[in-house]
Amino acid sequence: MTKTSTGNFFEDFRLGQIIRHATPRTMTVGDVALYTGLFGPRFAVQSSDAFAIAIGYDRAPLDDLLVFHVVFGKTVPDVSLNAVANLGYAGMQFLAPVFPGDTLSATSEVIGLKENSNRKTGIVYVRTRGMKQDGTAVLEYVRWVMVRKRDESAPAPGDHVPRLPTFVEARLLGSACPPIKREAYDLELAGSPYRYGDYEIGEKIDHVDGITVEEAEHQTATRLYQNTARIHFDQFSAAQSRFGRRLIYGGHVISLARAISFNGLGNAFHIAAVNGGRHVSPLFAGRTVFAWSEVLAKSELPGRDDVGALRLRTVATSDKPCADFPYKNGEDYDPAVLLDLDYWVLIPR
Amino acid sequence: MTKTSTGNFFEDFRLGQIIRHATPRTMTVGDVALYTGLFGPRFAVQSSDAFAIAIGYDRAPLDDLLVFHVVFGKTVPDVSLNAVANLGYAGMQFLAPVFPGDTLSATSEVIGLKENSNRKTGIVYVRTRGMKQDGTAVLEYVRWVMVRKRDESAPAPGDHVPRLPTFVEARLLGSACPPIKREAYDLELAGSPYRYGDYEIGEKIDHVDGITVEEAEHQTATRLYQNTARIHFDQFSAAQSRFGRRLIYGGHVISLARAISFNGLGNAFHIAAVNGGRHVSPLFAGRTVFAWSEVLAKSELPGRDDVGALRLRTVATSDKPCADFPYKNGEDYDPAVLLDLDYWVLIPR
Amino acid sequence: MTKTSTGNFFEDFRLGQIIRHATPRTMTVGDVALYTGLFGPRFAVQSSDAFAIAIGYDRAPLDDLLVFHVVFGKTVPDVSLNAVANLGYAGMQFLAPVFPGDTLSATSEVIGLKENSNRKTGIVYVRTRGMKQDGTAVLEYVRWVMVRKRDESAPAPGDHVPRLPTFVEARLLGSACPPIKREAYDLELAGSPYRYGDYEIGEKIDHVDGITVEEAEHQTATRLYQNTARIHFDQFSAAQSRFGRRLIYGGHVISLARAISFNGLGNAFHIAAVNGGRHVSPLFAGRTVFAWSEVLAKSELPGRDDVGALRLRTVATSDKPCADFPYKNGEDYDPAVLLDLDYWVLIPR
Repeated sequence: MTKTSTGNFFEDFRLGQIIRHATPRTMTVGDVALYTGLFGPRFAVQSSDAFAIAIGYDRAPLDDLLVFHVVFGKTVPDVSLNAVANLGYAGMQFLAPVFPGDTLSATSEVIGLKENSNRKTGIVYVRTRGMKQDGTAVLEYVRWVMVRKRDESAPAPGDHVPRLPTFVEARLLGSACPPIKREAYDLELAGSPYRYGDYEIGEKIDHVDGITVEEAEHQTATRLYQNTARIHFDQFSAAQSRFGRRLIYGGHVISLARAISFNGLGNAFHIAAVNGGRHVSPLFAGRTVFAWSEVLAKSELPGRDDVGALRLRTVATSDKPCADFPYKNGEDYDPAVLLDLDYWVLIPR
Repeated sequence: MTKTSTGNFFEDFRLGQIIRHATPRTMTVGDVALYTGLFGPRFAVQSSDAFAIAIGYDRAPLDDLLVFHVVFGKTVPDVSLNAVANLGYAGMQFLAPVFPGDTLSATSEVIGLKENSNRKTGIVYVRTRGMKQDGTAVLEYVRWVMVRKRDESAPAPGDHVPRLPTFVEARLLGSACPPIKREAYDLELAGSPYRYGDYEIGEKIDHVDGITVEEAEHQTATRLYQNTARIHFDQFSAAQSRFGRRLIYGGHVISLARAISFNGLGNAFHIAAVNGGRHVSPLFAGRTVFAWSEVLAKSELPGRDDVGALRLRTVATSDKPCADFPYKNGEDYDPAVLLDLDYWVLIPR
Repeated sequence: MTKTSTGNFFEDFRLGQIIRHATPRTMTVGDVALYTGLFGPRFAVQSSDAFAIAIGYDRAPLDDLLVFHVVFGKTVPDVSLNAVANLGYAGMQFLAPVFPGDTLSATSEVIGLKENSNRKTGIVYVRTRGMKQDGTAVLEYVRWVMVRKRDESAPAPGDHVPRLPTFVEARLLGSACPPIKREAYDLELAGSPYRYGDYEIGEKIDHVDGITVEEAEHQTATRLYQNTARIHFDQFSAAQSRFGRRLIYGGHVISLARAISFNGLGNAFHIAAVNGGRHVSPLFAGRTVFAWSEVLAKSELPGRDDVGALRLRTVATSDKPCADFPYKNGEDYDPAVLLDLDYWVLIPR
């Protein structure tokens, strides 16, 4: 019997099963630098210890998406090595700031299982939690993914579709953001004059900049997260696949869109929650990513007058500038759309 | 009205205007590692805490050019987002060493404005200062750049061409270099037997090595500096431009030439000043960069017997080895020349 | 006379000569992050301070191969700048763990010299030692390399072929591994259920995953080690060479194979020694690397019941998955084989 792990197939999961994922990972300023080099984020809070300390953090926290990618990466060998498709996210909350020196680990609970009618695949729902070395939860989210069966004749391991929130309620936001000293938040240094009150529901923002992605970049990023999904790294096998090319990790598009969104959302320094996200089409190396955002909703946070929350839809496209906000044509997405992300950001009031 | 910044146009500047640039940036050992991976510098002072401490530093300082690139990057969104051409530098002085943990920010003063006769563009002169979190100036330089007008009919915002030094006087050099313990400076560990006294004015050095540049490399470097000039990142738009390709940030060539110059200038561990520089032609990915240097002048430093200054011209070329020191053919540069840089380095006596 | 170093030629070496190599290098968490991004290793001990401390380390040590590459890189300008071929390694022992903050330097002793019968080249044997700032030896190995003569008529500088061990004896293993608290070694977090007792001599493991290599990746890695061998970086000159392409540093293949080997050897957290290695064929960018391993021997360590040693052969291939363990066809290697590495790893009992 081989010692090589082939990952879990649909029939290997059980409702209520708790999976402790390998590999714990100490996050460092080295990760921050490489993330900066790969995406170019410019939010002042994550970029500068001095800025972060001035407004109330202990030091510059890690980019929220870097935390997400590392936690997500840990789940891949157990949850999605045999995945056909990553179907969605729900209820993602960032619960505590993560600083260089913190060690991240992750667990997942299987909260839903639904075999598909073809009996070849099934949908696995997991609630994943990322934690620090002291057990503090830093991130929680539900993800569902279509996973192959090893043996089509195997009985379905369960039949339960969980109820999932369509969005994270505003009262749940903000635990990863300390009280912000508004008078110390320097708008010039932050690079944008716009506060919470300056954004209107329905407002659309073209983020203008485009970033072309190279194979070396997405591979380096995805390995940094210790994400082992083969399709991102193995051109020899990919050449024989449907696309003939390596597929870029969907999270790479999220990070690019977030970095690009600085131009127009420069003070939206913290992603507090992700309500849902869809990877509409795959991205390939050599393509240029653009993005635009719409303000879907606004909310004050109970008991806080330092920051407010904007609910955003950010749409990323491939080889299509976003001056006219490409999205859907009737029911269908514009073919250039890569990502449709619905999330909450915090921004000073 | 959109919240996206479109940058300043020529008519937006005012003589005497002071611009505080976003985004403050804490420099770390992560930045040092990535810079090392991208350029391969081998100067012992910047590479080794033990070496740096032995000769009189608190620890290994950041590479001078990394400091320059980060400060320069901050000025791009305010100064050169609508630039047609980066015309020159003058009077660049490194004023204090920067160490991991220091946070850099930058301000620029508009010291000259000159509309071009076509009224479509004008030249903006700025004096930029990079500072640490405590206000210590670490770098100062003048840069001038040709910037588009938004509206050709707008009146010129000023008409003043500043007097600029053709070179930095030797008496101004060295404030970023602590007193060096010459007896502790280990020539074997440093990798070169040559001290100040071994170089002669007029001496030319072929640095021999060539480095081919990949798109992923220059993009990663330029994002590391949070430099947002679109032409470096957006192949979709570049495909429709004059060159049809992404232009590599000119500073990338400077860093490559500096790293290559280690072979022949291994003890010239600190760039004290840049007298002037010209990006003679653009570099594109796939090309191989070579470099050679000439000693233009030498100078002792007033009151110091630890280090002396060499004034160098370093010339970088594209796809042309430098054994015969390619430079100019009559008035014109050899078409292979990328960079003509005139600067002062410090080297132990 | 030029100040550019052209490296040593065969006739420049002397038996018993000791070379102190430039450039000392302080290793940091930045190097660790970039190494993680470039190779994707997942061994828990090197990934997590919390995990490493729990089992008995002071903190997460550097990946053994990162230490090797940095030490090796220092020797290149002195030993192999004029090499025709890197012929082999013997007796490589890792002697002490290296942590972020440690400064590495290296010396080599010339222990053998043998001119080839064509009088154009000769073989140089060096024993290289890597050290920390306090003189602690961290790594020792013998390497032999075929080096060109500058002048064919020069007399041979010596004639001695040293006796070299065919493998490192098990009693010499383990000094770089502190006593491991077995009860604190968490197999779930480590990502593999298999301990020392679970491996059998003769067992073969296909590591399954493939990683495609990009030019930007191997260049960045090799510069990170300050390895200056031109053939890895200069496409302009390589275009006129036998292969027409940049050659990838052989150590890049070792690091890829080691990272891939996690799947099947997840608890083999430390390379204690390398008995020998052969770079069977060169790797080029665009190719996909796969790997498999065979357990050649097992050994307990004298006086230790915490960890045991597995002697492994790991074979890496180019564009050939390893389900059927490609190795040799009769005397000759399968043409897909890149690397044949014989080494000892430590794994909890």
